[in-house]
Amino acid sequence: MGSLRVYLAGPEVFLPNAAEVGEEKKRLCAKYGVLGVFPLDTELEGQGRALGLAISAANEQLIRSSDLLVANMTPFRGPSADVGTAYEMGFARALGLPVFAYTNDPGRFGQRTRQFLSRLGELAAGHDRDTHEMSIEAFDLSDNLMLAGALIEQGYEPTHGQADLVQRFVDLHAFERCLALAAGHLQQK
Amino acid sequence: MGSLRVYLAGPEVFLPNAAEVGEEKKRLCAKYGVLGVFPLDTELEGQGRALGLAISAANEQLIRSSDLLVANMTPFRGPSADVGTAYEMGFARALGLPVFAYTNDPGRFGQRTRQFLSRLGELAAGHDRDTHEMSIEAFDLSDNLMLAGALIEQGYEPTHGQADLVQRFVDLHAFERCLALAAGHLQQK
Repeated sequence: MGSLRVYLAGPEVFLPNAAEVGEEKKRLCAKYGVLGVFPLDTELEGQGRALGLAISAANEQLIRSSDLLVANMTPFRGPSADVGTAYEMGFARALGLPVFAYTNDPGRFGQRTRQFLSRLGELAAGHDRDTHEMSIEAFDLSDNLMLAGALIEQGYEPTHGQADLVQRFVDLHAFERCLALAAGHLQQK
Repeated sequence: MGSLRVYLAGPEVFLPNAAEVGEEKKRLCAKYGVLGVFPLDTELEGQGRALGLAISAANEQLIRSSDLLVANMTPFRGPSADVGTAYEMGFARALGLPVFAYTNDPGRFGQRTRQFLSRLGELAAGHDRDTHEMSIEAFDLSDNLMLAGALIEQGYEPTHGQADLVQRFVDLHAFERCLALAAGHLQQK
């Protein structure tokens, strides 16, 4: 099973010690008998726009070469997962890869969106719309229904952890539980 | 060309008059000789979690049955596109569908992220990281590199419009320009 590749999607690529967090995730992957693939694994040159486009192409290629994706859906700069992570979840799903995910925020999407809008002063009276009259999803899911739906359709709930705000992008307890689930899924096949 | 199907991804599904906006988008699709497919096209029953999951499954099926996707990437509740839209862009891309997009925010992702973090009081001194020390993408792109990269790799820039804040989720001028580009792409094939 050593050659099964798990793509590690998530916003930790934005951390100052991203490579270190990636190495720790890969160590945990090895513990569960799979090979972790981190978005920063490809050595790329260039800068600015050209570098951005090269990273995009490299990450798509890394996902295509993987057997499963584990996403960090911890809310990033808003009530939802990082959009790059969301894109990669959809990409993997359409390729037929099993998609697993964890989040270090234990809350429900609707409540978290209300709290966020309230903080911005954009929660309308009645609390079911924002000040642009746009509705707030209330499906008792952990994030937008496309993300949560993809996971649950496979028979697995998102793995929920609970980390304090400072640690929420580096705490790997929920990641490890999710990884154990994902590795078990691969072993069943 | 009347049977070519264009999936219309975007956060306008959250508008109070979502169906009406969807119909207007479909009318514009017809003008360009394609069939618009709107996320709310499938009649679904149920409520709460079961309804959320049914919508997710229906939308994936609608994308699978489409020939091209046009996404509304106008920033939604943060500096980036709606995560459901991001997921659908990745999904369509991995299926091999051409992915086009427009946004009614003419700005660059880096600058918009800084403005957003500043509003939340989470922009660190130096302006290149947030208060969690996480970096801010600065690749001179219109959104996260996975989203912008998918579009540009095909040879098309995201179509930029400029609408005032109140109209930004209903103004369809940039959508129509993007649709003309997409229809031209289909005709070349």
